[in-house]
Parts: sequence; C-alpha cells; structure tokens
Amino acid sequence: MTFVGGLRSDLGPAGVLTGADAAPYLTGQRGLFTGEALAVVRPASVDETAAVVRTCASAGVAVVPQGGNTGMSGGAVPAVADRSWAAAALGRSRGEGGVPGDGGADGRHRPVASDRSPGDDGGVVEKPSIVLSMSRMNRIVSVDPDRWTITAEAGATIDAVQQAAAAVNRLFAPDWGARGTATVGGAIATDAGGNNVVRYGNMRDNVLGLEAVLADGRVWNGLRALRKDSSGYDLKHLFIGAEGTLGVVTRAVLRLHPATPHTQSALAAITGLDRLTPLLELATSCCGGDVSAFELIPGVGLERVCERFGLARPLGTSEEFCVLVRLASAEPVSERLGAFLAEASQRGWITDAAVAVTDEQEARLWAIRDELSPMFLWSQHEHGVKLDTAVPIDLFGAYHDEVRSLAADLAPGASTYGFGHVGDGNIHLYVLPTSDDQVAPFLAVREQLQERIDEATFAFGGTLSAEHGIGQLLRDRIRPQKPEIEWDLMRAVKDAFDPQGIMNPHKTLPPA
Amino acid sequence: MTFVGGLRSDLGPAGVLTGADAAPYLTGQRGLFTGEALAVVRPASVDETAAVVRTCASAGVAVVPQGGNTGMSGGAVPAVADRSWAAAALGRSRGEGGVPGDGGADGRHRPVASDRSPGDDGGVVEKPSIVLSMSRMNRIVSVDPDRWTITAEAGATIDAVQQAAAAVNRLFAPDWGARGTATVGGAIATDAGGNNVVRYGNMRDNVLGLEAVLADGRVWNGLRALRKDSSGYDLKHLFIGAEGTLGVVTRAVLRLHPATPHTQSALAAITGLDRLTPLLELATSCCGGDVSAFELIPGVGLERVCERFGLARPLGTSEEFCVLVRLASAEPVSERLGAFLAEASQRGWITDAAVAVTDEQEARLWAIRDELSPMFLWSQHEHGVKLDTAVPIDLFGAYHDEVRSLAADLAPGASTYGFGHVGDGNIHLYVLPTSDDQVAPFLAVREQLQERIDEATFAFGGTLSAEHGIGQLLRDRIRPQKPEIEWDLMRAVKDAFDPQGIMNPHKTLPPA
Repeated sequence: MTFVGGLRSDLGPAGVLTGADAAPYLTGQRGLFTGEALAVVRPASVDETAAVVRTCASAGVAVVPQGGNTGMSGGAVPAVADRSWAAAALGRSRGEGGVPGDGGADGRHRPVASDRSPGDDGGVVEKPSIVLSMSRMNRIVSVDPDRWTITAEAGATIDAVQQAAAAVNRLFAPDWGARGTATVGGAIATDAGGNNVVRYGNMRDNVLGLEAVLADGRVWNGLRALRKDSSGYDLKHLFIGAEGTLGVVTRAVLRLHPATPHTQSALAAITGLDRLTPLLELATSCCGGDVSAFELIPGVGLERVCERFGLARPLGTSEEFCVLVRLASAEPVSERLGAFLAEASQRGWITDAAVAVTDEQEARLWAIRDELSPMFLWSQHEHGVKLDTAVPIDLFGAYHDEVRSLAADLAPGASTYGFGHVGDGNIHLYVLPTSDDQVAPFLAVREQLQERIDEATFAFGGTLSAEHGIGQLLRDRIRPQKPEIEWDLMRAVKDAFDPQGIMNPHKTLPPA
Repeated sequence: MTFVGGLRSDLGPAGVLTGADAAPYLTGQRGLFTGEALAVVRPASVDETAAVVRTCASAGVAVVPQGGNTGMSGGAVPAVADRSWAAAALGRSRGEGGVPGDGGADGRHRPVASDRSPGDDGGVVEKPSIVLSMSRMNRIVSVDPDRWTITAEAGATIDAVQQAAAAVNRLFAPDWGARGTATVGGAIATDAGGNNVVRYGNMRDNVLGLEAVLADGRVWNGLRALRKDSSGYDLKHLFIGAEGTLGVVTRAVLRLHPATPHTQSALAAITGLDRLTPLLELATSCCGGDVSAFELIPGVGLERVCERFGLARPLGTSEEFCVLVRLASAEPVSERLGAFLAEASQRGWITDAAVAVTDEQEARLWAIRDELSPMFLWSQHEHGVKLDTAVPIDLFGAYHDEVRSLAADLAPGASTYGFGHVGDGNIHLYVLPTSDDQVAPFLAVREQLQERIDEATFAFGGTLSAEHGIGQLLRDRIRPQKPEIEWDLMRAVKDAFDPQGIMNPHKTLPPA
C-alpha cells in the first residue's frame, strides 16, 4: 500500500484529501506561498493525530500543521523549498506546485518564486510533506465558567471560543478580523495578537495549558488549569509561538475574563505621533483598566475608507493621524471616556473626536478599522513593503518618523502608511506606490528599502514579527534581529524535541 | 594557584567569600538545607559573572546561583547530595556542612538529614560547587516610565524595584513579605508569586526580557522591551522558573503598571469555602479590575494573631474562614468596596466585615496577614506537613475539604491550617500538631499523610509548588505530578543548555 493509501485506510476517506480537494490547503492566505504535499491529512482525534505523526516519523515524511490557514507568514503551508523533493520522490518533473496523485496544479494556487533557494539548509535532503489540518478537531471540549476556562481542540475557531465564553457571561479576549476562520491551534502557533492585547495580552497570556503531539508521535498532556505553578520549565511557552516546529498542539485550556457588556469607542484626531505615549498614559489614568483597544488610524486611510463606502467623515479636523480607543467594562464607560477626551482636548493633544453612542456607530468605527488595509485601498498594494513590526512603546513615534524618512530618501514617490495596535508598540506598516507610474521606480529600490527598514527596526530594539510569526516569509530576514547565540539555543531546543527534523521544516528558525 | 585563589585574584577580595563569611550563604531560609561550597563568589558585573562561569565550566565545578537566599525550597544553596564530593575533592573527611578552607562548620548553619540519599542521580560523580551570589549586582540599570519598564540587575531587591517604580508614579506589582531581601533574579528563578498575582500575574508576567549567562559562560542578551514579539521560541520563559538550572539570570527588563494610589482592604467572615468562587466573581463584577488581592484568612489564625499582639478582634462573628480583599486603583475605591460587601452580605455569603478606613487600619489588616504563618503561632510548627499548593480555582473548597478529611483520618489530633492566595487557587497549607502531646503520634503518620495529601493534590489537577519552586525540597515528591514525558522533555532542554551539568545540579528535575 502507498503511504497515502495507508493513511486513508487508517483515517477513512474524510481524513485524507488529495488533488483538487487538497489544493486550498496548499496556498497561504496572502497567496505568497504555495507548497506541495503528499496529501492533506485531517485527523479527527488526538489519537489519530498521534498515529499520523508516528506514521510520518517512520516514513521520514514532514508534517506541516495547519489551522484555519489564515496565517500571514506562510508558516502553515509546506515550504517552497520542499518543492525540490517532488521530482525525486515521484520520479517525474513538476514545474508547478500541486498535489501529487491528481495530475498537478489546478489553477487555484500558484507557486511563487521564493527569495530563498532550495538547499539553503546546507544540503539537507528534502523530505516529502503532508499538511496536517486540524479542521476536523474543532470541538469545544468543556466550558468551565467557575474555573474561568474553556478547553478546546486546536481546530476550534476563535469565534467559536468567543461565543462559548459569551454564553456563560465570560470573555475570551483574543480577537482579530479572521476570528471566524483562525483557530485556537494556529493562534497558539503564532502567539497571535489582535485588538485586545493592550488589556489582555497575546494568545500566550490566554493559554493556561496545552496538549501536543510530539515529533515521535508521543502525546504530551499539559492540559492544566492552574493560575500559579512553579514546578519546572514551563514547556507550554515553547510550543506557543513555535509555529508547529516542535510538535502539533491538539488541545488547549484557554483563560476567560469577566464579560464586558459595556463597550464604547471613540475616534480622535491627534496632533502628532509624539502624543501617543502621553495619550495612552492619560487613557490609563482616566479609565483605569478599561482601555481594551488603542489603535492608530492614519488620516489618509480614514478618508479613503469613507470615500469607498460613501460614509460621512466622522471628524471635523484633518490631522495626519487618529487613534481609535475602546473602553470595555462590566459598568457603563461613557463618563470615563468623556473625561479622557475632554482632558486630552484641553491639553491640546486631540483636535476632534467622534464618540460612538449607538451600537451601529460603534460597529461602524470598527468596520473602518477593519477596512484600513492597503489591500482594499490601492491596487498597487502588492508591490509595497509590508511589515508587522513592534518597537518599545515610547519609541513608536521616532520609529515611524525614521521609516518615513528612509522611504522619502529612497522612494520619494511612495507613501508610508501604518495602522494598528500602537498601544502595544505594534504597527502594520507599509511603504507602497499609490499610483501606477510609481510602481516601476518603487520596485527598483524595494529590496534596498526593505533592508534599510529592517535594520532600523533592529536598531530601535524592535521585531519584524509582532504577531504574524516568522513562517517562511521572515526566516532569513529576521536573523539579525537576535544574537546568533539565541538562534543556537532555539536550534538546540528544536534538535532536542525533533531530532529527525520532521516538524514543519524550513520554517521559523534561520538555517544554521 | 588554587581554584579559589584564582577566582579571588580575578574578582578581588570582595568577590570571594570563604569560611565564616561564606556560611550564611550556605543555609537556606527555612534552615532545611545546608550545603557545602568551595567559596561564595560575588561578581560585580555581567562580564565577571561570565568569567566565573567559564572558569567553573573549565574546572568542572558546579555553579549554584543565589539571590537574596529567601527561597523556601532549597534551590539556592548547594544540594545536600553534593556533600559526598567534599571528602574526595579535599582528601579529608567532613562530617558537617561547611566551607572548605576555614576549618569547617561554624555553628551558624547545620547540615540537616535529607530524605534523599547521595547517588540518587544514578551514580553521577558529584561536582564541587561554588555559590554564585548576585548580591553585588544590585543596581537599577534604568527606569523608563514612558516605556513602562525598569531594567535591573539580578541582585536588586524587589523592594528597590518597587521604590524606583513608585518614584516615577508607576507600580512594580510583584510583592510578598520578603520584598526587602528577595531579589529580581531569585524571583525570576522561582517564578515567584505573592499577594498581587490575582491582578498582575506572577513574576513571569512581569518580565519583558532578560539576560543570562549560559553554562559555557556565553552571555545571551535578551533584554527586550517589547509587548508583542512573535519571532521564534520565547526563551525567556525557559529561564523563568528554571531555578538557575539552565543559566544565571544577570539582568531583566521588568514591566510596570499604573500606580494605584487608592487602596483599601476589607476583612470579611465567610460562611464557607463554597462561597469563595462566587465571592471572587462578585468582587470582580462589582469592582472591575480593581481587585488586587484575595486572600484566605483562617479564623483560628486571626484569633491567635490578635491574641499575640493584643489586638481587638476585628470581626463580630466567628466564622471558620475569612477573606482579605484589597482594591487598588487610580481613583477612590471605597464605593466599590462597599457595594461588594453589601451585596455579599445580602446574599448571605459573609456575616461580618471590617473595612480599613485609615492607613493604620489598612496596615494592621496586612500585618495580620503577614503574621499568619504557623511558625509564629505554634511552637510545634516544624513537625507539620507544609505545602504551597494550587488547584484550579473552582476546586479549592473541595480540595481543602479533602486534605482536612485525610488529616482527620490519619492524624486525628492534628490541625489543618491554610492561608494565602486563594484568588489564584494557591494556599499555604499545613497539617500540624498544635500541642506537645500531639507531636509523637503525628510524627508516626507524618510521612504517610504527606504522601496522601500529595496524591490528592495531583488528583485535583494541582501542583505541589505554586510559587516556591521545586529546589531540593520537592525534587522527588513532585515527580508524579507530571507525566514522565514532560520530565523527559525538560531533561532534554537541560542537556541542550547545560551538557556538562554544572548549573545548579540536583535541583528542580527529578533524576532520570
């Protein structure tokens, strides 16, 4: 029996996809990365997951864990470098990405040139891969309001967990646009962030325990529900953010917070990025722990979103930047929000503000936020430099200025455009051409500009990946961010957990 | 030149202590553990620390990092099992713990029989040790209010960091009785907890970055100040809670919170442990995020402390248990605290409450809390079973009942006495004889009782160490708490970081 035939016999037909059925699992969300796989394998239980990993370990087949496939860095699709195995493994040449066994690419996914070449791992023999999709393991295992936890399988969506929490008057805090598709396992793998981090922390801070299938198919059950536990190395923190390179997370105990039925947001035009630090402090002191989001909104983005949807401009002044602040509490928050805005205005830090007073207005402010991506606003977006960076929060304004100055030097026609989680020092930052005639000159300097911005990010003590992971996208670029000794330690951990190197190869860790 | 002579020549006389000067560093706080060491070495800088570790690595000498030596589990003094090296290393027999080179024990410390025998690591040759005291590395490196961080050396005390934070209107949240002696490095090593965990998390949650000297003397600088960073394995979490077995933490970037100038506490008599879960929820919903402590106070302890200090009893009813609840905020909290108590009373969950309305009353309530240890209340305390356990918060009452029932079965004369951080599911729990005639019968069943309580703790999904670490005290007892695969993974990490096994041997990890 073939390898895939064996898996199909173990898991049944629903458990193994090939051909056109498998194709959607092989291209990442942005379309940046398309890989190849022997099959997409969808176990329905922890035991099946362990059996699949054991089978792969025996056969020397790599395992690429995948949640909702909403990742931004290509961490959940087989690495492009893996393409070289196909010809050898299958005895024929394949120019396109695709699933062996079904006649090749089906047009819905496309291989994209990687800036890494195969063999960059020093001549490591490429392994064939399977995608291990957790999509059938999507159950909420238990809801424990008195314990303030939910236990969920890795394939449960963020939205499903949020709803299960809301049903018992609790809040599961991690939240971002892809909540309906992104999964618990994927969020753990990338230590996902989102809008609520300023108050509730990253995914890491919302996981009390987890279970993982290790590279040899053994199952580590670390499904604990303790608030305090000083009993040895806290291994869950290794799996969180490891992008599946140390094992496959199968279930997790997630932390819940008190529900916040009263939420209210305001959009305020600020007089400069140097106001961000004092504004955040003022919001904190006026509003106690109620600040649940503190987002940067660029004026130009606000304007374009309003144009696109035919919305009235919410603000009477046209500052270059706005902040979107949300308070959330068990009690009404209007008074606190008003006091904050009044004080900020009196100090001259904001020139106008729009407070959402109806649910519809609240939803509209956040819809604007969700539509800010250049993807929706400029057809030239795909040519841009795209970053998910974070710096120490006090340096945010200076960092933004530095990026803008680099862009002005190297690509004078391009726009610098950033939005997002500035309360955490995190920004989704783009330098991009915004008209067709700018594209060619921009592309001529794109690589150099990206390098210079990366260097500036490092110089500010920042990270190239605040919440999107390293995956394939940043694997080489991120190397200078950390001392080599740190990568050495990570590789030592990787070798200890996965000596055969089958867990999501060519991801996360730069080659030695 | 001798090994110690070489160190003295490198570090100067203040950097190397032997004899009577060294003795206080060799016995842990509880007096439970006394070890031996070639010397107590006190580097004054990261470079000196690295040089000392390199010297030890070359010579095969073990390194026992030590902060304020306030640890409860013997993690910061050389392991008792190390005693066997002394005769071999020095060519003479030593019956007592002590520092070679000064003629032996000086009476200020005593070797105490360990319930582990030397050689329990499967015949590993014992290494001589040094104690690496961080006491001279006690500087506050920088205070960055706009970044909401303080960077401190490992030997800075918790109190010093708290004061530096307060000076810029910020709060460093970790806090416990030993704040004036306990250090940043020690708190990181044990992932220390304390009274504020219910709101601000453990030490782990208050560390943004750290620097460590590795087992080969290389320095890993992970002194980051990022709120979000999804860029590979988060190695700081390995060092936090590792009790110095993976390297020596030398500096850390600590997270600050908004100052809470308004604090107010109330002591309330509760009608049963089954009230704890709903009371905590009520406090959370009445008081938003302001609950900064939620402590269990046993009625008998309250009574004895009041007797001892001649205090009037603060409560008019005599329930078996009370809770001490503290609110802390930038704004006045009286109204919220009052609303909580009124509602709790109306629901019949509390029968009386004393609210601190002056600073003196506030201090007195917390002084009572600090004096609750049986150490201060019963001369027979040293014979008791002493635990620092945590269970899932909803199971706390059932767990406490189970322990009491085990005690009633096996040691009918003994008292079950617990206090502490019940808002985190964490309790300092004792079963002890409280009169001299109970001592002998208690000692006859002590070991069996401890085993049964340990088993019950595991059965409740709990931990034997909520905030005190494993050290030497729990190294064997804690093994059944986790699956063997988890210890295997930890040992793999240990081997990867410290292949020579020189970092704090015989601690934390049960022998393979």
